Amino acid sequence: MNVYSPRLSRLIDALRRLPGVGPKSAQRMAFHLLDRDRNAARSLAQALGESLDHIGRCPSCRMFCEDEACRYCSAARTASGQLCVVEGPADLMAIEGGTSYRGRYFVLMGRLSPLDGIGPDELGLDLLQSQLASGDFNELIIATNPTVEGEATAHYLAEMARAQNVAVSRIAHGVPMGGELEYVDGGTLAHALSGRRPV
Amino acid sequence: MNVYSPRLSRLIDALRRLPGVGPKSAQRMAFHLLDRDRNAARSLAQALGESLDHIGRCPSCRMFCEDEACRYCSAARTASGQLCVVEGPADLMAIEGGTSYRGRYFVLMGRLSPLDGIGPDELGLDLLQSQLASGDFNELIIATNPTVEGEATAHYLAEMARAQNVAVSRIAHGVPMGGELEYVDGGTLAHALSGRRPV
Ligand SMILES: [Zn+2]
Ligand SMILES: [Zn+2]
Repeated sequence: MNVYSPRLSRLIDALRRLPGVGPKSAQRMAFHLLDRDRNAARSLAQALGESLDHIGRCPSCRMFCEDEACRYCSAARTASGQLCVVEGPADLMAIEGGTSYRGRYFVLMGRLSPLDGIGPDELGLDLLQSQLASGDFNELIIATNPTVEGEATAHYLAEMARAQNVAVSRIAHGVPMGGELEYVDGGTLAHALSGRRPV
Repeated sequence: MNVYSPRLSRLIDALRRLPGVGPKSAQRMAFHLLDRDRNAARSLAQALGESLDHIGRCPSCRMFCEDEACRYCSAARTASGQLCVVEGPADLMAIEGGTSYRGRYFVLMGRLSPLDGIGPDELGLDLLQSQLASGDFNELIIATNPTVEGEATAHYLAEMARAQNVAVSRIAHGVPMGGELEYVDGGTLAHALSGRRPV
């Protein structure tokens, strides 16, 4: 096989560990950084170092957090009495950026997936349990993804909330606003039909 | 729009500067590194720093090079009298790994592309010129890609070599070994037909 010089090999190997990056892309990235954009390489090295040193997880909501006080766990948000559970940071950002919801969040950083060894412990559900038991919240909004695993997770979370007498809701799934029926997949359409409401 | 905390935003921005990485992939990469694989993040930061500090270009062949003496510019290789021009480092590695060629190389790090501002200066052709004039070489093997720009570059290089009385050859293009005619694109097939040889 092709063997690059030691440092170049190490760089290509390190780039390959990024999700979605295969051997060819890793090579192309390494050449681009070394040949075309050394500033980008420098910025990336620096951003990685800084992030590793300063970005942790919020002890309450598990979102990535740089400061002592998580911006998503303020007293004002807690006062809303609402707690929204999402699978990942991007989901939190989508709700925060696309809706007017300003309650608290809980970021699972995954979904229940027994086959992959992801159970309640991996998702911090003991922490969620204590928050549900605290009396701070009167509604748990479940915003896990509408996949098989997301639905199983939602079911599990709903049971947890009910056991603490916290009301449970699930965000609605169906035909996207502006979507045309003929372009919507069958599963979504079936879900939309069975979830129909009287008007 | 969604706004992440400052360091996380910087990390996502830095990842976006990698070729082929859009906003969604950059986000996914950042979350993966921070949440799942901090070792990979550490390795990448380190590999980038090391590479920037130690990887340069060989002053003779323009290949990436870490040491004083480029492994592709040895006296034994020069003694072959052959100089093979390729567009990029991956091309050099492909020839080195897939063939028994052990002559010298010259890596253009690009191809002539006047519209993109890439002319002879950007490809180090003055350096190639002096090597052709040195008397060290009796054959210039042109292995640029069979694209419009690669062909134009090949033509330009051939003229340079002829002016120095260095024999010129171009690697063969046609139907790949083991390829089936019906699956080969029309351009390749036309090239293969017009380049036919008596048997
Ligand atoms: Zn928080
Ligand atoms: Zn060299």
